[in-house]
Amino acid sequence: MVEHGALTVIGLKWVPSFAQGQVRDHRVRWALREVGWEYEVELIDGAHMTTPTYRAEHPFGQVPLLREDGRVTLFESGGIVLDIAERTGRMLPSDKNQRALAKCWTYAALNSVEPFLLELFFADMMIEDKEVARGYRPHAEKFARDRLDKLSVALGDRDWLVGDEFSIADLMTASVSKVSENSGLINDFPNLAAWRERCFARPAFRDSIAEQLAEYERHGPADMGWDQDPTKN
Amino acid sequence: MVEHGALTVIGLKWVPSFAQGQVRDHRVRWALREVGWEYEVELIDGAHMTTPTYRAEHPFGQVPLLREDGRVTLFESGGIVLDIAERTGRMLPSDKNQRALAKCWTYAALNSVEPFLLELFFADMMIEDKEVARGYRPHAEKFARDRLDKLSVALGDRDWLVGDEFSIADLMTASVSKVSENSGLINDFPNLAAWRERCFARPAFRDSIAEQLAEYERHGPADMGWDQDPTKN
Repeated sequence: MVEHGALTVIGLKWVPSFAQGQVRDHRVRWALREVGWEYEVELIDGAHMTTPTYRAEHPFGQVPLLREDGRVTLFESGGIVLDIAERTGRMLPSDKNQRALAKCWTYAALNSVEPFLLELFFADMMIEDKEVARGYRPHAEKFARDRLDKLSVALGDRDWLVGDEFSIADLMTASVSKVSENSGLINDFPNLAAWRERCFARPAFRDSIAEQLAEYERHGPADMGWDQDPTKN
Repeated sequence: MVEHGALTVIGLKWVPSFAQGQVRDHRVRWALREVGWEYEVELIDGAHMTTPTYRAEHPFGQVPLLREDGRVTLFESGGIVLDIAERTGRMLPSDKNQRALAKCWTYAALNSVEPFLLELFFADMMIEDKEVARGYRPHAEKFARDRLDKLSVALGDRDWLVGDEFSIADLMTASVSKVSENSGLINDFPNLAAWRERCFARPAFRDSIAEQLAEYERHGPADMGWDQDPTKN
């Protein structure tokens, strides 16, 4: 067993329904459950994310953070998942070439896939001027579809992105693919949809997502310091 | 000295002037020069990027790739720079906490900074419908400015992002900040502009950027298989 200090994952008290299941502290919980490390959860509100104290731990005022007794607090889902994998040797292929490739895939997921799916999410959910959003959406969908198409070709008929087992490549890529969930775009790529089901059928995924959703169930917009659900303006 | 096979960085023969200095194989050249590993350069054209052969090495048909004798070909600038740093122990703090934090910063650069600067780049350069681009630009600038503002606060009056020396945190973050170069936005944040100058004054940066720009000087749109500069349509 690899030693570790007491762990605390920082997440949000509540998010609107369209974002539930997509908040990135889930990736850290998923990874921790894959390696069997127990953790506590600390839920914060919107005001706390903007405090200098929080910004000192997370420069961009986002979640997740991973606090660990006797260790520096880490931020950014990719960096935390990499750290857990490197310390435990889990979720990484044993072959050194494939190990390096699996790490490359975590960057690809976060830089060559997620931002393009996020464009679509912005067009659908975040741009307040609906006329601008309508004009921009076809461009956003083109970018998003192109990335999923290439991801689909790269996966082909294999079970996992790198090697013969589930790795951080699959964890990060499957997780980022949820960003465009509302669009249903992934269903146009049956091999991707099946691979993602394979990832999401893992007990570590299922238990961590259930845990996160149950927290949102227990809270509401007022717990985030919001007068009402911001999407219902 | 850490052993390595013969190295080849894959870059592009030519890009339009607005993109020159921003193509991501530069990050790999910069890192290789920081650690003193010699490399060859192979320049490819637009048609080659879409071939199944190339896609088998790079799922998203982009640059950079790093080929190495006796080793798997790596893709994605973040993954390649991490690999070079981990194998050599260079560009990483010696303290294990700071080392983990520097790795987190590479993900932050590529996921929490670059995509938001890229929005602005898209609005200014890539969205063909100029009316849509004009409508979208203020949103894009708001996102980009917010990220640079938070980056500026995170850096404060320190010389480097993590610890007392230049690390992969600085390399990746300074490099991604070039994405919004055309906007001049970084000049609104004097500490960021000064830190970036510090990064860009390094011989490894200067030599690698000069090398890349000289290649573009020797080529033109026809070498990419383009009838003309695509930005001059």
